[in-house]
Amino acid sequence: MATIVFCSVNKTAQTTSRRCLISHLKGLANAGVSQLPLASTHSPSLSLLTGTRWFSRGTGVRFMSHGTAGRAAAGRSRRGALALSGAAAVTAAAAVAGFLANASHFQRAEMATKIPKAAEDKEQEGDILERCRGFMSLPVTDVGVLQGRKGEMRTRMEMLIMETQADFCKALEEVDGGKFKVDRWHRKEGGGGISCVLQDGKVFEKAGVNVSVVFGNLTEEAAKQMRSRGKVLKGKDGKLPFCAMGVSSVIHPKNPHIPTVHFNYRYFEIEEEDGSKQWWFGGGTDLTPVYINKEDAFHFHNTLKEACDKHHSQYYSDFKKWCDRYFYIRHRGETRGIGGIFFDDLDSPSQEEAFNFVKSCARTVVPCYLPIIYKHLKDPFTDEEKDWQQVRRGRYVEFNLVYDRGVKFGLATPGSRIESILMSLPLTARWEYMHEPAKGTQEAEMMEVLRNPKEWV
Amino acid sequence: MATIVFCSVNKTAQTTSRRCLISHLKGLANAGVSQLPLASTHSPSLSLLTGTRWFSRGTGVRFMSHGTAGRAAAGRSRRGALALSGAAAVTAAAAVAGFLANASHFQRAEMATKIPKAAEDKEQEGDILERCRGFMSLPVTDVGVLQGRKGEMRTRMEMLIMETQADFCKALEEVDGGKFKVDRWHRKEGGGGISCVLQDGKVFEKAGVNVSVVFGNLTEEAAKQMRSRGKVLKGKDGKLPFCAMGVSSVIHPKNPHIPTVHFNYRYFEIEEEDGSKQWWFGGGTDLTPVYINKEDAFHFHNTLKEACDKHHSQYYSDFKKWCDRYFYIRHRGETRGIGGIFFDDLDSPSQEEAFNFVKSCARTVVPCYLPIIYKHLKDPFTDEEKDWQQVRRGRYVEFNLVYDRGVKFGLATPGSRIESILMSLPLTARWEYMHEPAKGTQEAEMMEVLRNPKEWV
Repeated sequence: MATIVFCSVNKTAQTTSRRCLISHLKGLANAGVSQLPLASTHSPSLSLLTGTRWFSRGTGVRFMSHGTAGRAAAGRSRRGALALSGAAAVTAAAAVAGFLANASHFQRAEMATKIPKAAEDKEQEGDILERCRGFMSLPVTDVGVLQGRKGEMRTRMEMLIMETQADFCKALEEVDGGKFKVDRWHRKEGGGGISCVLQDGKVFEKAGVNVSVVFGNLTEEAAKQMRSRGKVLKGKDGKLPFCAMGVSSVIHPKNPHIPTVHFNYRYFEIEEEDGSKQWWFGGGTDLTPVYINKEDAFHFHNTLKEACDKHHSQYYSDFKKWCDRYFYIRHRGETRGIGGIFFDDLDSPSQEEAFNFVKSCARTVVPCYLPIIYKHLKDPFTDEEKDWQQVRRGRYVEFNLVYDRGVKFGLATPGSRIESILMSLPLTARWEYMHEPAKGTQEAEMMEVLRNPKEWV
Repeated sequence: MATIVFCSVNKTAQTTSRRCLISHLKGLANAGVSQLPLASTHSPSLSLLTGTRWFSRGTGVRFMSHGTAGRAAAGRSRRGALALSGAAAVTAAAAVAGFLANASHFQRAEMATKIPKAAEDKEQEGDILERCRGFMSLPVTDVGVLQGRKGEMRTRMEMLIMETQADFCKALEEVDGGKFKVDRWHRKEGGGGISCVLQDGKVFEKAGVNVSVVFGNLTEEAAKQMRSRGKVLKGKDGKLPFCAMGVSSVIHPKNPHIPTVHFNYRYFEIEEEDGSKQWWFGGGTDLTPVYINKEDAFHFHNTLKEACDKHHSQYYSDFKKWCDRYFYIRHRGETRGIGGIFFDDLDSPSQEEAFNFVKSCARTVVPCYLPIIYKHLKDPFTDEEKDWQQVRRGRYVEFNLVYDRGVKFGLATPGSRIESILMSLPLTARWEYMHEPAKGTQEAEMMEVLRNPKEWV
């Protein structure tokens, strides 16, 4: 096991930082490392969206501009770096702290989603090595390789999924107080992944955020199955070089008043016989509450809708319906949760615009979910409410093991990393025979919504 | 909800009994009953095998001959009947009580499996109405219809599965002190079932024993899929009248030192275009311990082997292998438990002999399992042992939802009774990320056996 130490976070220390990273990369190559815990390098800041960091210490919530809100340093130079970023944070945050003092979680979240386009672009063009410093681990692909093909979509997407993983993990660590266990794994056939799991924390029963980047050759049949529209692709001698990557996450909190969230954003590339590339994106974010809270549901869906609306007026409406259809437990006649958005096989209007849409979605995960956690963090609950949560967890397991395409594909694929595929399962679940909530109860209200999906926005 | 009262159990009261039953049958037909709780009529006796009842009160274990060991009466005349059967029980049991006082559970179980052939035959020929009195509910098929086609295999099998359900449920109630909830359900397309579930008892976390008898028409394709050898069958206009019935059960005890047991015995009949009937039996019994106990494993497998050996010298060996192959969690590279026997598509050497084999197996369930429960009933256990049980429960869920053919078929079949299909799931389960027992522990010993199935006999 090896620990990577990023020496500093401020611009002036970039050279040192790079030197540290490179020397560690060499060390890692020799050690055959399978796990790179960067937990000690995590910033205590909550990255909401590009350019904005959300500090939450005690009861105060403060904003600061991106770039100064250091991906905090660890190791010997950590103290100095923290002092720097901390000072910057206080200065930047002071301007908005008063304004936000009385804003609800949702108002704050809404603000956070309104990021100037310039900031997004700047992020995208940023230095790869510098961006890597904030990740939970080194990217799956060698940093040198990524730097060499900086402008290619597979590099940009790998950076996005690594960043999404880091931002979300740090936001959750900030709430929970616990640290994610970071496992780096290698796929014999090509590629690998980084699994971050926080289990039995203060707030989270089980939180998993997984990145995987795999490549190799697909058979024409397998390639066809990977696309929901089932396009026929022609390979060389029937084989198609492919590259698939994604970030996926399921968070099961302990408190039954904090919903479970799931998201997944992925990208595929397949090279045909003539060298032309087929590519598409897929993904979605959906919420599975144990009890219905209309304000939470509105916030969650509305945040997604705003992210969608920036790209296409039909996206939210279409992808919301797709989500309700996909997360349906047929044998129970109920949806898994209250949905969100879900899409697959997205290859229009252009690769650039599709990527920008996926980026907006990925960056909406934190503002969609974190305010809901904070809102219910100290909600009291009864044993009966906990039992109902456990019964709903059982349904979650049923969906994931019986219907989820990703899980089914993973379990059927030799060489898959089972622990990463099944980290979506809750720590605990319950199956009560003939459990049916009494009329007029909050549990019955939940069932009604699951049986008849609603419009929340 | 209606309660059936069987007025008496002794021979002299048969006329009264039949009158009571018939008047109730009429009442039920009018009431459209979906649940017939017969719990209050359960005898406190434990039926081991044909002709033998095993009384366990306090620390004593006594045998008594069949027929006099009343399927105890309830209602107004209950007291008298109990006095009668109780007296008979004491008389019959006195002869063996002393002999058995020092016998181990396993010796007692072994004795119980050695039943004279005459007793089996007598049982089979017994009066249908009288046999029904001991069931958890009326059979799925109308008693009048069963009496009218007494000699047919579907009647004999329905009586066997009803009897197996009752004997097992009563044995479990005796251990637990709780009562099974009895649900009768109707299948719109033909037939129905009786589900008995005891949940959150003193000994059992969840115990389910299900009988189903369904009939109707199958497509040729569906009929082909139902047989493991995939025979092609010709129907009238592509349709094949079929009848399928079985008893299945999964018992999840609370104490991690008492293993989970599963069994299922089933019979299929399909009528071809020319009126000829295709029929076959399937089934098996298997054990899923949380910790390895070699004595338990030997007892369980040896009891099954003895039942098999009475019918064919190859049965145990072949069906033990089949069991290990079937209950295999491929994505984990481990079996679900330590196996037992499993067979399907059994249509030789004759219907009579195949039925007799199935009957032997069904009647071996109680002597296979009950001694193991009694042996570990008061075993102390730690929180860590309970956690390990919960992790193994998680694997049980994985097998049942991902691989079990019966569950998959049930979930995919419209109109299935989901609660009966999924009653096999434990009350509680747990998924820990990257759980791997430390070397040299009892948990690691269990894993070793699950990864490399052993010969126990």
